[in-house]
Amino acid sequence: MIKVGIIGAGRIGHVHGESISKFVKNATVKMIADPFMNEKTEAWAKSIGVEKTTKDYKEILNDPEIEAVLICASTDQHSPLSIEALKAGKHVFCEKPIDHDVEKIKEVLAVVKASGKKYQVGFNRRFDHNFRAIRKAVEAGKVGKQQIIKITSRDPELPPISYVKVSGGIFLDMTIHDFDMVRYLSGAEVEEVYAEGSITVDPAIGEAGDVDTAVITLKLTNGATAVIDNCRACCYGYDQRAEVFGDKGCVAISNDSDSNAVYSSKDGVTAEKPMFFFLERYMAAYATEVDEFVEAIVNDTETPVTARDGLEPVLIGLAAAKSVKEHRPVKIDEIRKEYNL
Amino acid sequence: MIKVGIIGAGRIGHVHGESISKFVKNATVKMIADPFMNEKTEAWAKSIGVEKTTKDYKEILNDPEIEAVLICASTDQHSPLSIEALKAGKHVFCEKPIDHDVEKIKEVLAVVKASGKKYQVGFNRRFDHNFRAIRKAVEAGKVGKQQIIKITSRDPELPPISYVKVSGGIFLDMTIHDFDMVRYLSGAEVEEVYAEGSITVDPAIGEAGDVDTAVITLKLTNGATAVIDNCRACCYGYDQRAEVFGDKGCVAISNDSDSNAVYSSKDGVTAEKPMFFFLERYMAAYATEVDEFVEAIVNDTETPVTARDGLEPVLIGLAAAKSVKEHRPVKIDEIRKEYNL
Amino acid sequence: MIKVGIIGAGRIGHVHGESISKFVKNATVKMIADPFMNEKTEAWAKSIGVEKTTKDYKEILNDPEIEAVLICASTDQHSPLSIEALKAGKHVFCEKPIDHDVEKIKEVLAVVKASGKKYQVGFNRRFDHNFRAIRKAVEAGKVGKQQIIKITSRDPELPPISYVKVSGGIFLDMTIHDFDMVRYLSGAEVEEVYAEGSITVDPAIGEAGDVDTAVITLKLTNGATAVIDNCRACCYGYDQRAEVFGDKGCVAISNDSDSNAVYSSKDGVTAEKPMFFFLERYMAAYATEVDEFVEAIVNDTETPVTARDGLEPVLIGLAAAKSVKEHRPVKIDEIRKEYNL
Amino acid sequence: MIKVGIIGAGRIGHVHGESISKFVKNATVKMIADPFMNEKTEAWAKSIGVEKTTKDYKEILNDPEIEAVLICASTDQHSPLSIEALKAGKHVFCEKPIDHDVEKIKEVLAVVKASGKKYQVGFNRRFDHNFRAIRKAVEAGKVGKQQIIKITSRDPELPPISYVKVSGGIFLDMTIHDFDMVRYLSGAEVEEVYAEGSITVDPAIGEAGDVDTAVITLKLTNGATAVIDNCRACCYGYDQRAEVFGDKGCVAISNDSDSNAVYSSKDGVTAEKPMFFFLERYMAAYATEVDEFVEAIVNDTETPVTARDGLEPVLIGLAAAKSVKEHRPVKIDEIRKEYNL
Repeated sequence: MIKVGIIGAGRIGHVHGESISKFVKNATVKMIADPFMNEKTEAWAKSIGVEKTTKDYKEILNDPEIEAVLICASTDQHSPLSIEALKAGKHVFCEKPIDHDVEKIKEVLAVVKASGKKYQVGFNRRFDHNFRAIRKAVEAGKVGKQQIIKITSRDPELPPISYVKVSGGIFLDMTIHDFDMVRYLSGAEVEEVYAEGSITVDPAIGEAGDVDTAVITLKLTNGATAVIDNCRACCYGYDQRAEVFGDKGCVAISNDSDSNAVYSSKDGVTAEKPMFFFLERYMAAYATEVDEFVEAIVNDTETPVTARDGLEPVLIGLAAAKSVKEHRPVKIDEIRKEYNL
Repeated sequence: MIKVGIIGAGRIGHVHGESISKFVKNATVKMIADPFMNEKTEAWAKSIGVEKTTKDYKEILNDPEIEAVLICASTDQHSPLSIEALKAGKHVFCEKPIDHDVEKIKEVLAVVKASGKKYQVGFNRRFDHNFRAIRKAVEAGKVGKQQIIKITSRDPELPPISYVKVSGGIFLDMTIHDFDMVRYLSGAEVEEVYAEGSITVDPAIGEAGDVDTAVITLKLTNGATAVIDNCRACCYGYDQRAEVFGDKGCVAISNDSDSNAVYSSKDGVTAEKPMFFFLERYMAAYATEVDEFVEAIVNDTETPVTARDGLEPVLIGLAAAKSVKEHRPVKIDEIRKEYNL
Repeated sequence: MIKVGIIGAGRIGHVHGESISKFVKNATVKMIADPFMNEKTEAWAKSIGVEKTTKDYKEILNDPEIEAVLICASTDQHSPLSIEALKAGKHVFCEKPIDHDVEKIKEVLAVVKASGKKYQVGFNRRFDHNFRAIRKAVEAGKVGKQQIIKITSRDPELPPISYVKVSGGIFLDMTIHDFDMVRYLSGAEVEEVYAEGSITVDPAIGEAGDVDTAVITLKLTNGATAVIDNCRACCYGYDQRAEVFGDKGCVAISNDSDSNAVYSSKDGVTAEKPMFFFLERYMAAYATEVDEFVEAIVNDTETPVTARDGLEPVLIGLAAAKSVKEHRPVKIDEIRKEYNL
Repeated sequence: MIKVGIIGAGRIGHVHGESISKFVKNATVKMIADPFMNEKTEAWAKSIGVEKTTKDYKEILNDPEIEAVLICASTDQHSPLSIEALKAGKHVFCEKPIDHDVEKIKEVLAVVKASGKKYQVGFNRRFDHNFRAIRKAVEAGKVGKQQIIKITSRDPELPPISYVKVSGGIFLDMTIHDFDMVRYLSGAEVEEVYAEGSITVDPAIGEAGDVDTAVITLKLTNGATAVIDNCRACCYGYDQRAEVFGDKGCVAISNDSDSNAVYSSKDGVTAEKPMFFFLERYMAAYATEVDEFVEAIVNDTETPVTARDGLEPVLIGLAAAKSVKEHRPVKIDEIRKEYNL
């Protein structure tokens, strides 16, 4: 039984706390740290069996019983906390992205390597039943030689503009999951990106220097072309679809709903909307990702989403942003060279 | 090229006239007879290339060039016209049912046999792409040993009460198609019927001595049980579904719509309603049934829906009506004995 | 926080133990009793946080801290244990059916009434997301006046013949869930039953005096007709569908699968099979039913499945068995009179 | 009743001949011309009621009774025949594309203008029930402000390399239909194109200077981004899907099959493949397009696909080809300037 500490008790910290207590067989949460720790959070922590809460994350790092740390703090804290935790001898599960700054990610990668500790990035969709069904079909050879990969990923509603400003932009904040999915589903790397960005939802996003709608074309090392379409707002909910098309077949996934009930009336034949957003849609995946992280520690195997898996989508995201800015296709190697990778 | 005559220029007479002129390769309509023949109908007949129109169907029977007759007159005329046409040496396509009276059907069967002419009953669903796909799967052994057959058949709206009164009742007018489908899909015969009838749409139907909603259970000679559910009114259109379940698999069909467009909005995910009613839904089947009738004449083979196929569903319908009246399961053999069959 | 005891550590006892420990907010399992308690079960109990295990269920009944008992023993023990637990002052959650013997159920009902304790029967489907979506639509008036209710319920594989012999027969063992669903979905009572039973899977079932395939027609107090089709074996898995059709609309549910992935290849367009069986399919419902039982205790409200809800489906099942035996429709009142109800 | 002549009795000439004879109310085919006219084609023409066949298309142009001409000859003949027919005073229905050479299309446009005759280009998908359902939803305001348009268009099998060499390339031969659909569905114009082309099916296509797989991103004048994915070979048939996503909703269409039968067995839940190719899939659309062409003549209204609708997709196709060649986004205005448009 692995004892873990959670740094950051915001929304995603709560998700991990709850799901570890319920579903993760070989782990318990011993401590939760948050600079804004309050009575409500303390009560919640107690209710899920957490021994201790603190405002100082260093208490977690200093606790010799705690073997692993989940970093659920704000994005700018991901890389420094990763490094500090690794150096304190902890295995680290870090929410995505590791950082917006490639130099900082490189530092994390170096420390991971030096530490010999497990490191996993929170790309939750890799653990979802639908996306896994595609991957399984691809691995089983049912798709054959890959030709076209399509991902639709639309969020139900705009985040606050204040968030957009610190998000790193749509490509590092939202599309980063889709970039990871392209790599995961295909098992190949991205060579080049062309991104078309536009403002169709809210001009304030444009004023903040970002786009809210994007269509991104990616050339892969296996010869396939991938295309992602994103929108920050979607009136019918969280639209999460994907397909991989090859010379032996095409495997496609569609949205999940709360029930499969269909209502027929004089107005048409109506099914339920997709589940509202990522917490509803990927709840089970959040549990599975931590469960597999813990198993990687217990069995001393590679984590299912490595530090390098955390780096690559950031490089693709930077290429996409550059593509929009310079209105041309951008090779990932251009970005790699910028950072001596 | 077979020349045919159509007796009866009502709705179904029009359907057959149109579809023969467009789709039936080896037939042309030479003459159309209707006691209420008027200018409008004459103009229509001309527009589809019909040579002659008349108020007197005997002109059709007396025309030596006309080899086959389609009987599209009112139900009470089906059996006398069948007999007269057969005796005049014509092949006969007769709309369903042959008659409500078994004795009259028996006469038709005798004349068919004596005449050596082709005779086909208008059970159009046997020629529909969906129902045929079930039959094909059953014949290919994909269902294995049949266990349960289900048919849902709901009409979009009540017929006029005046029609209900002369319709022969729901079992001979509406369910008769489903009884035929049970025989067609299974390839087996019906042994016993239990029918539950109720009035859920309009009390006037009850006052007319009929029911508007029914669930009918049928035991088949192959050991399977079939269940049909009917309703005379269905707010979302013409609901036509079926499935055959066996030990190797289950094959099921659902409704057809005008398009497969799906609209997702804040109100849900909405598809189109089923096509409105039988003319829209089975238009292609009406053409195919006459085409296959003509081919049976040309190639001198058995018609795909024989006179006996016209008799059996009437026997089942009478058993169903008796079951409702006497509130007990009724064997088809009971009905057969009543009529010395 | 309610402390509960579980009597019976078989398959369903395990399900409840696991799900209470993970999902039921206001309850913990304090003790588990099973006459065949062994090391493996003890280890499992410990792993989910249970304080104590025992071979003697009386230890649970005698523990004043334990407020509620889950009866997961074999069916013949349901009613005596219910009575003993209620008399010991415990709230009782009892797996279905309460008993095969109506007299014993009547005793349970009397004791429930006298005790003032909560009593809930384990009809898990009432807590399933799909079936609840139908119920919700019905309650919201979206179906209007109910006309036809259809339930398909087919098990993936035959139980052992030894089990069939003590199961009470298909109607009390398997269809009992569907009888409960008819009452739950419609909000109405069953007046009369006609059941058609057959042996299409294994003659040994017939030799054991039971049927393995059935189509059951039910007349309801609200004027609707319900029809259930059952089979003990279904090659594509656990087939669980339902629909309620009324004058304002029809709401239908279909099967759930592990993923919604669809694979298109030269061989067709293929989706996954339904989830294999009840444990996979209704796992979440097992947690919800106990959660709502605990909430009924905490808030002192009526349980969502009362003792009477446990009685009615047994009466319907006995009527169905009589219908098959006597080959006629049987009114539930006939059964009620037999038992002075 | 309009008399028409058909120039070219190949596959598409046959399609139009058949469908005019069956479905087009106000037209009959008087003459069919083909330089390779033979007995078989003559017999076919006679069977559909055509008065005359000839090897010399000028006989059609010289027949004063013939008001309209369908040009179904090889692509290089489309523009010269269009001009000659218009100058002979005929209305012209011309198969797509008008020409691969913009200068020749410009000549056609000039002659159309000068002649005052009707001119329609054979973009058959505009007349398909599914695509029309999208257009109808867009026009009804159900999509709101358009944001993303997606079209998947994959052919079942490679054409012969000999054909590829004269086809004008994938963008002018295959994607041209999708470019037309982008304009039709959106009601907007294309401003800029970025095309990613690859060889994933057959290296011989690359040797012929073309690509067999493409993902094309298009910026539209209404602010939306469209993305088309194409492949020359698709093992499960003719894949024709589309969606228009906007701030009020998303309307999507999927493939049509021969039947909606679904087969469930131990191997999964299997539906039929999409219809094989364009002749099967768009048969009804071929009839409707000519019917509406004839109605435009009869009622003296604009044709539903004008000569300019024939020009624009060619410009987009040329921009796409340039985009692949120069590996950059290309504005349509660049192409327009090249041709002084």
